[in-house]
Order: sequence, then C-alpha cells, then structure tokens
Amino acid sequence: MKNLSDIGLVGLAVMGENLILNMASKGYTVTAYNRSVDKVDNFLAGRAQGKTIRGAHSIEELVASLAKPRKIMLMVKAGKPVDDFIEQLIPHLEPGDIIMDGGNTHFPDTNRRTKYLESKGLLFIGTGVSGGEEGALIGPSIMPGGSPKAWPFVKEIFQNIAAKVDDGSPCCDWVGENGAGHFVKMVHNGIEYGDMQLICEAYHILKEYVGLNADELHQVFKEWNEGELDSYLIEITRDILGYRENGEPLVEKILDTAGQKGTGKWTGVIALDLGIPLTLISEAVFARCLSSQKDERVLASTILSGPTPKFEGDKQAFITDVRHALLASKIISYAQGYLLMREAAKEYGWNLNYGGIALMWRGGCIIRSAFLGKIKTAFDANPNLQNLLLDDYFKDAMHAAQGGWRRVAAAAIANGIPAPSITSALSYFDGYRTARLPANLLQAQRDYFGAHTYERTDKPRGEFFHTNWTGRGGNTASTTYTV
Amino acid sequence: MKNLSDIGLVGLAVMGENLILNMASKGYTVTAYNRSVDKVDNFLAGRAQGKTIRGAHSIEELVASLAKPRKIMLMVKAGKPVDDFIEQLIPHLEPGDIIMDGGNTHFPDTNRRTKYLESKGLLFIGTGVSGGEEGALIGPSIMPGGSPKAWPFVKEIFQNIAAKVDDGSPCCDWVGENGAGHFVKMVHNGIEYGDMQLICEAYHILKEYVGLNADELHQVFKEWNEGELDSYLIEITRDILGYRENGEPLVEKILDTAGQKGTGKWTGVIALDLGIPLTLISEAVFARCLSSQKDERVLASTILSGPTPKFEGDKQAFITDVRHALLASKIISYAQGYLLMREAAKEYGWNLNYGGIALMWRGGCIIRSAFLGKIKTAFDANPNLQNLLLDDYFKDAMHAAQGGWRRVAAAAIANGIPAPSITSALSYFDGYRTARLPANLLQAQRDYFGAHTYERTDKPRGEFFHTNWTGRGGNTASTTYTV
Repeated sequence: MKNLSDIGLVGLAVMGENLILNMASKGYTVTAYNRSVDKVDNFLAGRAQGKTIRGAHSIEELVASLAKPRKIMLMVKAGKPVDDFIEQLIPHLEPGDIIMDGGNTHFPDTNRRTKYLESKGLLFIGTGVSGGEEGALIGPSIMPGGSPKAWPFVKEIFQNIAAKVDDGSPCCDWVGENGAGHFVKMVHNGIEYGDMQLICEAYHILKEYVGLNADELHQVFKEWNEGELDSYLIEITRDILGYRENGEPLVEKILDTAGQKGTGKWTGVIALDLGIPLTLISEAVFARCLSSQKDERVLASTILSGPTPKFEGDKQAFITDVRHALLASKIISYAQGYLLMREAAKEYGWNLNYGGIALMWRGGCIIRSAFLGKIKTAFDANPNLQNLLLDDYFKDAMHAAQGGWRRVAAAAIANGIPAPSITSALSYFDGYRTARLPANLLQAQRDYFGAHTYERTDKPRGEFFHTNWTGRGGNTASTTYTV
Repeated sequence: MKNLSDIGLVGLAVMGENLILNMASKGYTVTAYNRSVDKVDNFLAGRAQGKTIRGAHSIEELVASLAKPRKIMLMVKAGKPVDDFIEQLIPHLEPGDIIMDGGNTHFPDTNRRTKYLESKGLLFIGTGVSGGEEGALIGPSIMPGGSPKAWPFVKEIFQNIAAKVDDGSPCCDWVGENGAGHFVKMVHNGIEYGDMQLICEAYHILKEYVGLNADELHQVFKEWNEGELDSYLIEITRDILGYRENGEPLVEKILDTAGQKGTGKWTGVIALDLGIPLTLISEAVFARCLSSQKDERVLASTILSGPTPKFEGDKQAFITDVRHALLASKIISYAQGYLLMREAAKEYGWNLNYGGIALMWRGGCIIRSAFLGKIKTAFDANPNLQNLLLDDYFKDAMHAAQGGWRRVAAAAIANGIPAPSITSALSYFDGYRTARLPANLLQAQRDYFGAHTYERTDKPRGEFFHTNWTGRGGNTASTTYTV
C-alpha cells in the first residue's frame, strides 16, 4: 500500500464501499472516511480487509493521508450533506485540490458548487454514477462535469474503474463545465423512466389484449433481447417474467404502484423550462403518478367502463408490431433526450460530446444497450446532427417500424388499454414531420382575444400582423366576413 | 366625485385603464397613477374625462387621495416592478391598508408577498384577472387570494366590476389564502392552453383527413357552439374560420408557430412537482414548443415519411365523432386541472371552493363556457367530489363520447395526423379506469436493479418485499427460475 492514498472517499453506504473496492481492485490506494466512524472500522475489518484501503477517523486524518493534488470523492446523500462536507473540507485543503460529488445531485447545485469552490482556488467535479450497487463494484457508467482543470487528475482513475464496452472503451469521459455531468445523468434517468414505461406498455398490451401468458411473455422478451432491442432493461424483464414463486409468476403478485425518486420529474421540469417537447419521458413520469393512485383507480374501474379487449388476427405478426412500437418509441425518447441536452448546452454554455455521451451510456448503467452504439455511430458520423430521427439509420428504422407502431397504438386505443408513452411518441413523430401544424389557428385565437399578433406565410419572418377579427372598430379594409 | 377615492390603481397600460373605467362605470371613484406621469395626464384628458376618476402624480398624492383602509391595485408587469411599487408604497401606508396585485404573477411570489406585507401590518391580495382588454372593461373573471382579512373590504368592488352569469352571479369570489388566487389563475391559463390545442387538433383532423374546406369548417364550429361545446373559444374559432381576406380564409395565411407566455409551462411544472398527471395540458405546452421549431419541421417533412391521409366513410358521422373527441378530451383536461388544484390545496393549506372556481371561470374569461356550469353543478352537488369523471353527468358524457373519441384517435394515428392532446387524454382515461396497471413490472424492475423493494397484492399495504431476482446469493427459498 502506498504511503499516501491516490484518492479519498467519504460516505460508506453500499455505493461508496463498492466504488472503493472497485478502485482498490484496479491498484489504487484509497482512504475511506465516514461521519459515523464505526462504519470505517467495520469496513476495514470486513470487505476492505487485505486490500489497498486505509481508514480515516477524522477529516484531518483523511486529508493528511492523500497525495497532492488531493482528490476527495463524496458519496453522501444529495443536498445539505454535500454542502456540509464541502465546508468541513475547505479549511484543510490547498489550491488545486479536488472535491468530487458522486451523488444524485440536481445540476443547478453542481453549477453553484463549482463556482463556489473555484472562487476558493479549489476544483470541483460533480459526476453522475450509474449502474447501481453492482455497477459501482464491477464497473459503472461515470459522467463527470465541473472544473475542466480537475479532469486530467482524475481521468485515469475514473476510466479505469468504469465499465468497458466493445473494444475496451471506458464508459466515462469528460462531459462539460459546471453541472453538465449531473445534467447528463439526469437525462439518463429520465430516459430510464421512458424505457421502463415503454416496456410496461408492451407487456400490458401483450398480456391484456393479445392474451399471452407468463411463459409466452418471458419468451417474447427473451427473443427481443437477442435483436435490436438487446439491452439491460429488456434482459431483466425477461428474467422477471421467468421468475416463479411456488410455481406462479411472481410479477403478477406485485402491487402496481410505482414510486419515483425525483430525477424523472426534474427532466420533465427542465424540458418545460427550456421549451423542448420531451413528451415521452413526461408521460412516463405522469404514468408513475397515476399508478400510485391505486385506490382511486380501483374505485374508478367500477364506475367508468370501456371496451372489452378482443384480439383477432395473427399473434406472431402482432408481437412483431409491438416490437416495432417499442423500438420506434424508444428512438423518439432518445431523440427528445438528445434535443434537451442540445438545448441545455446552448443555454448553459456547455460543449457536449454527444457521441461520447452515448458511449458513456453504452455500458455500466441501467439504460445500457446495443441501441446506444447506433447513437454513438450517428453522432460520430455527424457531430452536429440536429435530431436523431434525421440520421439515416434511425430514419430507416422509423420507416420500417411505423406500420406496426401505428397498428399497436390504434389497437390499444380501440381496446381501452392505456399506452401513453407509445401514443405520445407517435404524436410527436407525426408532429415533427409535419411542415404545417395547426398552430396557425392557435395564433389567430391569440390575436383575436389578446392582440398578440401573428406572422404570415406570405411575408418574411419577423413581421407581425394584427387583425380586428370582430369587425368592430377600424382596420377591416381588405377583409370581409362570412356569416 | 367623492372627496376621497374608493380605490387607487397603479399602471396605466390598457388593462389598467380599462379596469379603472369599469370601476368608474359602477359608481366608484378611482385614483389613477402611473410611473411615467404623462400617461396620467393623457388618460385624464382622454378616456377618463368626465368620469369619477382623478389622477395622482406621485405615490404620496395617490395615497393621500384614498379613503381608509386604503385599497391600491397594481396593474404592472409581474416580477420586480411589483416588488418595487410595494416598497415605495409601504412607508406611506397604515396598518390595515390593502395592496393588490392584479398582474400575471407566479403564485410563489404571491405567497411571499402576502407574508411579507402581513408582517408589516398591511394586507395583500394577489388576484388573477382574466378576460383580456375587453373583459377588463366590461367585466372580467376575477380570482382573488391573499390576506383573508382584506376580502370584506374589496368584495363589493370586485364583484360589481366582474362578469355576471346566469342569474346575475358575479364571476368573482374569494379563492383562498396567500397565492391561491394566482394559482387558480395559473390553472385557468393551463386549461386555456389545453382547450386551444384541442380545437387545433380537431381543426387539423377535419381539414387534413376529412378534407373539409374553410366554409365547411366555419359551419362545423358554428354548430358546435350551439351545443354542449358552447364556449368563447369555439365561438372565436367559428369567427376566425369565417374571416376572409380578399376572399381567401385569412387563417390559412397565418404562420403555424405558437408562442407562449409561460403560465402553461408553470402549470406543467407544478403538476410534475406535486405528482399529478396533468398530461393533456403538458402535451399542449409541448405542442406549442414543437410548433415553434418551424424550420426543423419543414426540413424533417422532406426526410421522414408517413401514411397519406385517406378518408372513407360518412363525413357527418365522423364530424360528430370529432365533436365527441373534443368534448371527452376537454372533460379530461378539466378533471386533471381540478385534481391539480385539490393537491395544491392539500400541499399549501388552502380551503378551495371548487364550485366557486367553476363559477368564476363561467364568464368573463377566455375559457368561459356552458360546460363550466356543469362543473359548478357537479361540485355543488358534491363538494368533496374526488374526480370530475366520477360525477354522474360527466361519467355519462364520457360513456356517450368514448366510441367516437376512440375512432378519431385511431384514425389520426393510422393517418399520420398528430393529435397529442386527444390521444394523451384517452390514455389517461384508460389508465384512470384501469384497476391493474402494468406498474407491477416496473416495480419488479426497480427491485431487480436497485433493491427498491415492492408491495404485494396478497399482503397488506405498507409491507415491503425484496427478491433476489438473479438467483445469485441467498434468499431464493420458495422461488424457482424458468429459463
């Protein structure tokens, strides 16, 4: 074990411990610290035993144990605990030392902390870490942003402990300034919400409309995981649908009320703030909200009626349609997520590497998939790609999938099966590819009741017109009314 | 003219001037003040001439002209100008005097200002005022909240100048404490976004799919305005579709890029924050965002293809279906808006009168409609109504409308016409009336990758279970895997 540690880590919950063990397994010497110091002792006597891990029983001891520039990673609860530790650390650090926050922090806090610590001569990194407990131990996806000057000092450690894909590329690269890393992690989580909701809708349609049983559902997801939908979430869905308790599918005994941790919500809120139509993820967040109103839904189901689902036709062909619906909707979700990142980059002055982000998500994290390799390819080919849907591969995929997608969405609607994300994605696709939307009428309404003015198709942009629609008062020269 | 004015008003833009003229027309004496005092002189020499309106050229003069307790209404730009005028007024006021903000203020600001002014011994009212310039002059919808002690002093003025409906009931009543009035105004605006988007989607489907021309469209909205959809927005749509410029329908010359003023966005954000599935209004906000990306849509329309709309069948029957789709979606939108208000009342400790809110919106404002009379009836019959959809009238309306609604949504999807709000509303309806949603699978996924635990249908609520889904490690006692 080296005399001075390569890095220190504060916060010995499972994520923190697993990251330390991951670092030690790559040859780094790590100092572990926790506010309740008995956790330090337990860790050293337990999982850390015999590894290049030392314990610290105070902030002073932690700081003294580190090679310079010191690198200290916080794996504590997001919010006040992060600020508290930062304040405790500051008096003991020297210019150029680096504090890192690997928690689930909302990006405006990371913006603020980066500026604050830089004003003190220190460096800060706020980094998304995805992959759960297992990922932390064997290779997570790591999305660091903050002080660019800090990156060269932590790059090697981060990339060594990160997940690897394909040719060994690490699922970790510099994201951007200030809160960019946590922003990208937030979008990752929003996309995770969308992916999960899409899978639930596909499962619901196949179960309630097509009438597949648990074994058939298991088989469908098993097959899907061997094609273009190959991904961690499809894989675990396959496993879940195959899981039996006393011979019965356990999933059918689970209560249908989904919780949320807030990051999906954050993604929807910032999309509204930035004016980016992030419809699919927002519907996914709202679907969780509706699921949690279980008692009210049970009551409503006895009062409000709808059609009785009745499947007719070729099962296998329809299962293929559902796969297409899932794929096409998923493409929409990622396209929308990337548009949100593009707008945020503009708004906050980040220089985001979109292909690099796809690579970071390609392995280690919850949304890891073969699909993300295609996104990386698309942005590598055209770093300025305006919308994923305009890339040749995705365009062709959409064209190939849209027939089945429309059949599935229409069948869900006709048969009373809720598919909010699948149908919302389709509405977005049709809106996006429509040169002329009906917002002309909306602009006329706004001009009618609020004199908000409008632009015209036969005049240059930037010229604004107002019409006296009621015909009362002046300004009706060249216009007439039909009654 | 009385020696002391009944009320003072600051801010002589059109809304402010019109409110003053409205008050004077009801016999009140009003002092008008504006930061640029030449506006005061112009107003007095112009529209205010010969009326019970006096001018003030300074804050001191304004305050000195008012009967006690003084009532001063700010009609200035939301944000800093409101705070600035409040600070200017405070030194000149006495305990019990009342400041009112009639601007488009975000409700958290009204929460803050109410507490601040009450801490100074003053009273504050933040009030929504809807109806545009014309409404301000002849009778707006007024939604006041703030300091309950202020209400008896302004009730008579506010109710006298407000719009009247049915038997002469004023479209103004006390909403609730602190920011409740501005919150309800915000929800009003969100609903306005939804109503406008629904009308646009109906128009788009009838034009692009059914192939109706401008005269036919005009006629359809004219008929709709004579039935259950009777409302200001349907009425002006009728007028707009009938409006000709050089013989051509003007609406078709208007550019299809809708702007937004932020209140729709606020409604979506707070819905996400409070966990209420406000899907329709959110889709309407996102639809405006998408409409504004005109250049990108024009480009995308040359790259992404879809089905060619082809209408077959009975035109009149389908037009009726579209009317049903509009009505059913609108019921969903209001049901969601009321759920949001119910949750906000719980969150912020407001005691909202839901029937009273429907009455306030029944006349004077942009969303005024016969429909709101039905909502008032529903909440009068059952003030604790959990969801509008569970009221007999609305339940029957949904059941009567859903066949056509489903046909329209399915046709839009099959024919590539975006109808995000209509389809989103239908997904919500089907989700709400579904006792068993697929969130059981979602909970299994969360437990699989994050050990988030789940509840079970065969165990009481509040008991949480975790499964070792991978079969790695222990805890697999009573379960087996199928491969």
